[in-house]
Amino acid sequence: MNRRLVLYRVGQLLVLETFLLLLPLLVSIIYGEHHCIKAFAMTMLIAAVPGLTLSFVLKPKTRVYFAKEGFALVSLAWVLVSLVGALPYFISGEIPNYVDAVFETVSGITTTGATILTDVEKMSHGLLFWRSFTHWIGGMGVLVLMMAILPSNTGRSMHIMRAEMAGPIIGKIVPKIKDTAKILYIIYLCLTVLETGFLLLGGMPLFDSIVYSLGTAGTGGFGIKADSVESYSPYIQWVITVFMLVFSLNFNLYYMLLLRRFRSFITNHELWVFIGIVFIASAVVGVCIYPIYGNVGDAARHAMFQVASISSTTGYSTADFDRWPQLAKGVLFLLMFIGGCAGSTAGGLKVSRVMLLVKQIQKEIKRMLHPRSVSAVKLEGKAVDDDTLRSVSTYFATYILLNALAFILICADGFDFQTNITAAVSCVNNVGPGFGSIGPAFSYSGYSDFSTIVLTFAMLLGRLEIFPLLLAADPRLWLKRNG
Amino acid sequence: MNRRLVLYRVGQLLVLETFLLLLPLLVSIIYGEHHCIKAFAMTMLIAAVPGLTLSFVLKPKTRVYFAKEGFALVSLAWVLVSLVGALPYFISGEIPNYVDAVFETVSGITTTGATILTDVEKMSHGLLFWRSFTHWIGGMGVLVLMMAILPSNTGRSMHIMRAEMAGPIIGKIVPKIKDTAKILYIIYLCLTVLETGFLLLGGMPLFDSIVYSLGTAGTGGFGIKADSVESYSPYIQWVITVFMLVFSLNFNLYYMLLLRRFRSFITNHELWVFIGIVFIASAVVGVCIYPIYGNVGDAARHAMFQVASISSTTGYSTADFDRWPQLAKGVLFLLMFIGGCAGSTAGGLKVSRVMLLVKQIQKEIKRMLHPRSVSAVKLEGKAVDDDTLRSVSTYFATYILLNALAFILICADGFDFQTNITAAVSCVNNVGPGFGSIGPAFSYSGYSDFSTIVLTFAMLLGRLEIFPLLLAADPRLWLKRNG
Repeated sequence: MNRRLVLYRVGQLLVLETFLLLLPLLVSIIYGEHHCIKAFAMTMLIAAVPGLTLSFVLKPKTRVYFAKEGFALVSLAWVLVSLVGALPYFISGEIPNYVDAVFETVSGITTTGATILTDVEKMSHGLLFWRSFTHWIGGMGVLVLMMAILPSNTGRSMHIMRAEMAGPIIGKIVPKIKDTAKILYIIYLCLTVLETGFLLLGGMPLFDSIVYSLGTAGTGGFGIKADSVESYSPYIQWVITVFMLVFSLNFNLYYMLLLRRFRSFITNHELWVFIGIVFIASAVVGVCIYPIYGNVGDAARHAMFQVASISSTTGYSTADFDRWPQLAKGVLFLLMFIGGCAGSTAGGLKVSRVMLLVKQIQKEIKRMLHPRSVSAVKLEGKAVDDDTLRSVSTYFATYILLNALAFILICADGFDFQTNITAAVSCVNNVGPGFGSIGPAFSYSGYSDFSTIVLTFAMLLGRLEIFPLLLAADPRLWLKRNG
Repeated sequence: MNRRLVLYRVGQLLVLETFLLLLPLLVSIIYGEHHCIKAFAMTMLIAAVPGLTLSFVLKPKTRVYFAKEGFALVSLAWVLVSLVGALPYFISGEIPNYVDAVFETVSGITTTGATILTDVEKMSHGLLFWRSFTHWIGGMGVLVLMMAILPSNTGRSMHIMRAEMAGPIIGKIVPKIKDTAKILYIIYLCLTVLETGFLLLGGMPLFDSIVYSLGTAGTGGFGIKADSVESYSPYIQWVITVFMLVFSLNFNLYYMLLLRRFRSFITNHELWVFIGIVFIASAVVGVCIYPIYGNVGDAARHAMFQVASISSTTGYSTADFDRWPQLAKGVLFLLMFIGGCAGSTAGGLKVSRVMLLVKQIQKEIKRMLHPRSVSAVKLEGKAVDDDTLRSVSTYFATYILLNALAFILICADGFDFQTNITAAVSCVNNVGPGFGSIGPAFSYSGYSDFSTIVLTFAMLLGRLEIFPLLLAADPRLWLKRNG
């Protein structure tokens, strides 16, 4: 592996993080939160020194990425950005346990939105902004951001994009990766600004609008109120519902819209399957909760909001859905696994991956009926090659094992079965809340340090789709030369 | 499809069931239970008339089975045997709801052991015997039994064996299927008699010994006491522990022992992985429950018993494990999915299938590190072909979907999350008890008829490894001619 190149890029990334920290620093200055100003300034220093050193000393000779460099860089990048990103919480003293601070940061950057805070409303503005801003950075990917900004990116940086962006098949929308990254980020930024505008129109304060837009855009779920979105107006709740869904769609589709290729948009199967899932789930949940709210409007709003929130793996709530009827909870639980569309900021398995699994099952049945038949599995009109199919099935098995492993490792803390299983599933799928003691009305603060670390890894593994981190744990990846 | 052949075999099967019903009839006569005598006699008549008609009228011209005939026959056979087998409960009036009676019969024949009875100790001896006897019949497979007994079996009946016996790869142990079936049933019978002997030695009454041996042999779990095995002596509990494990091993291994091929026995990987899982799980559970029992002996006995019971998917209990610490419950929950070895009477995914999934993941990781490397996945020293690997992954995806579907369909009844999820998983994996309201101290009687039917299908789909029944639901399978 080209370790020099990886470390060089890691250095550049730390420099980038230093610049990103300017924004929360600015917020702290505006609100005059001195302990936060100090915490952000110190963190910037801690990030900048090794960052600048690595990126100036280690100028790499070759800049060609192979798959290995991609996995190594992505793993190292996400772990380092999280460890550094946790420092402001820790230095400011607002999260005194560093393990908890790392959990909160990883929960941010992986767009999970699970929190260990027991009283979010006591936090300072600077940290609240940083918390939501990590969602935004992690949603589209921090390395994709680097590719979009930095000038020099030659050769095969596709491997980085593939390792960081979610879904079974990652397509370039334009021939150059750098341009693809730039276009995606511009769309991402515009949609975020658009949501902020809509929220401001509803009378939401500016700070709240920005924070909730960042949280929606990354499909993260961090808010600034103890009751998430419950106390905001129905208009605001509907705006957030729509934008949670908007950010769960494949961003390539928005590029199609910009190019006026409406046909490509309309004929996208994954889009329609996702919409179908959301509407059917909302209908079932709506019928279940109708007796609680007593009128169609409220039932529809709460059902749609929660379904959009869980499907998009955001995790905001307008109601304590843990107290809803079991069928409604069951639907939400299954939605956690599915997640949003590939190429979006949402977590979960991704709709297209579920589609490929179902198509493979159909093909297997067909093969049993007609052993000699040959038929290809198609997605979006294109035949999917056997390698992709195999890696989708293998990913699914690994993913289920990951859920099981996360579950069993946190069982010792004495929480009930429902809490443990939904904590594991919610973290692996980057949702945020679960049921029981980690329901929308509670936090993850009751878990031990050990379980907090397990869930931190679960979130990272879920966000990076497992394999990059698994490979990074293999010493063979880091060898200088291997065949 | 050769419908004539399938119906002919179904006829023969009903005749076989008539003969099998002679045994519980005999038990009823011994105990002088007149309403049961009447019920069994009527059921025999109902089975015999269409059975004899079909098997005499529809003599098939060709007796060659293809995969399709295998799937059709297995599906039809299991559904019919269950519908007829439920009649004694219903006619005798001891289970007045026919839906419940079918659930109880399917639970028996699929070796699940989930019951809708609220007071098993009130049941008559004849029906208690029939209940446990269905475990024994279903454990090895009713069509395999027919193949072992009936004289005429030419051509490709391997397809039936493959559809009825569990595991990713079914091997003939001798060239002729008929002889393989016979050898398997002789081993099965001998081991059952052996267990009965050991139980009698421990002072267990004869009726109890037979019933618990039948329940253990099929890895079913129906008993005759409200507290399952709790009130029997530790000796009896240890005997049942050992035999639950014995019946979870691949029966081919016992044939190896008979042939004195000890090396083949000792070098079987699946065996050692299964033993490893059982011992590690028992150790974890033992440590968890040690504070409850206060001494190593009792903790070890209860831990080993419950682990063996769940791993083998039997479902007997010596303690109300629903009240055990969460880590112990978590371990038992995950064991439900794994199940026993292929080629045994146990349910679940089967150890060898889990091994193949893990090996595929390892291969995928290796391929990511060395994209050009070519390596085969091996099981028991033999390379596993791509078709088998693909069908294992596809099976896994289908299986997880089945668990999810069973779960969501029973959510409307208002039981809690834990109860619903473990009910679904326990039925799909043919275990029996779960946690919460369907824990070892309770029964499935609280579920609605709709949920009972859903769980009945879940048990059948789990036992037949999904695809035969899925195919039988496809009208294309039943067409007379198709390409």
